[in-house]
Amino acid sequence: MKILYFGGQKSGKSNLAEQKALNISLKKSYYLATYDNSFNDKEMHKRIDKHKLQRKDEFTTIEEPKDLLKVLSKSNNEDTFLIDCMSMWLFNNIDETEEYLIKQLEEISKLDANIVFVLNDVNSGVIPYEKESRKFVDMTGIVGQKLASICAEVYEVKLGLANKLK
Amino acid sequence: MKILYFGGQKSGKSNLAEQKALNISLKKSYYLATYDNSFNDKEMHKRIDKHKLQRKDEFTTIEEPKDLLKVLSKSNNEDTFLIDCMSMWLFNNIDETEEYLIKQLEEISKLDANIVFVLNDVNSGVIPYEKESRKFVDMTGIVGQKLASICAEVYEVKLGLANKLK
Amino acid sequence: MKILYFGGQKSGKSNLAEQKALNISLKKSYYLATYDNSFNDKEMHKRIDKHKLQRKDEFTTIEEPKDLLKVLSKSNNEDTFLIDCMSMWLFNNIDETEEYLIKQLEEISKLDANIVFVLNDVNSGVIPYEKESRKFVDMTGIVGQKLASICAEVYEVKLGLANKLK
Repeated sequence: MKILYFGGQKSGKSNLAEQKALNISLKKSYYLATYDNSFNDKEMHKRIDKHKLQRKDEFTTIEEPKDLLKVLSKSNNEDTFLIDCMSMWLFNNIDETEEYLIKQLEEISKLDANIVFVLNDVNSGVIPYEKESRKFVDMTGIVGQKLASICAEVYEVKLGLANKLK
Repeated sequence: MKILYFGGQKSGKSNLAEQKALNISLKKSYYLATYDNSFNDKEMHKRIDKHKLQRKDEFTTIEEPKDLLKVLSKSNNEDTFLIDCMSMWLFNNIDETEEYLIKQLEEISKLDANIVFVLNDVNSGVIPYEKESRKFVDMTGIVGQKLASICAEVYEVKLGLANKLK
Repeated sequence: MKILYFGGQKSGKSNLAEQKALNISLKKSYYLATYDNSFNDKEMHKRIDKHKLQRKDEFTTIEEPKDLLKVLSKSNNEDTFLIDCMSMWLFNNIDETEEYLIKQLEEISKLDANIVFVLNDVNSGVIPYEKESRKFVDMTGIVGQKLASICAEVYEVKLGLANKLK
């Protein structure tokens, strides 16, 4: 089963996605962290550390910033993955073509594993002037629509409250 | 009947609005394109061309960046218009007064034609610092509330999924 | 009873929150205005004046930009407050710690008065690059999740239309 949690910054989407992954898994779930540790971003490190602490020992953490299939292709139908988050995966793959990214999602949709995706809503503000930001916003919409289409359940999260869109 | 599709950048709102227009029309629908071709914006041209290709021969396209009534006032109750999008119309009329814009929408609401409006959600991000952007965000909210009030159905679109608000 | 109205810029949230406060109050309600008049922001003053005019004599206005408890702690279960808005309160308290702000909300949640909160949705756009804006967006999410948890009813407002999230 594929499930998507979608919401704005600090909406509580990761927390709800974590609970969902724990609820649907029969054995210890995998936390697929997409943050690229090769950047030296102190604020992000602080966030990640706080997050890691909250997750405690409930997940087995795997770090893979770019190639999700490298990790997921070894999975079977008893595995549950929480991918937090697809926005960071998109950011790390922003120089790839739209076709490549859509193809990756189609390959992932064919896998038997349970996957809970997390995606940032960045699409409801003023369209940014910078070309890179604009591309990121557009690709978030394109990737998000594809993700929603391959997921059985889609939840929008606002203020810690989930609204089922599908 | 007046219907509004409202959503963020690349939310799939135009696609759903197009389907709706085709569904409710008894004869060939009109696509009222509000993009001002007098700007020389290559990226926008590319977007428009891709869009035009997708619409194929299902609509008769009319281009009118500013004065919607000039086109719509000749319509009758057998006509269906898809206006894509009201945000571009607002942008092209940003120097008009709020009263003028609201009056235009009231005139449009009195017409017998079926009209499917598309509007960009730009109101849920950080309030921009630049005066022009701030005005555009404010006017989008004001125009959007007016549009919602004159429409029988209002849909918010996220990730290609429509949520009926009214 | 505590109630939250949450929405983007010019979504109509204040208007709906005002109607709600008037509906649930048995006697004249208080309008707790959080705007800091010590700033000299002409555009904001114009907005406030327009707003004040709209509210006419339906509310007793109290101005308190920072310390809500100073006003609210004197209340009883027959009082109804409309706090417009919590985003401005957050902005005026942005140098306080997260712990302090959460504690304030917990203290407020224990009061017997009816309180209708208004909060701006700024979390669904591109994450701003400036550290201060980023902090404001993050804290809006954190404060918003806390507010939602202490409220019996939570409404998201779009285009003047309320969607009950809780």
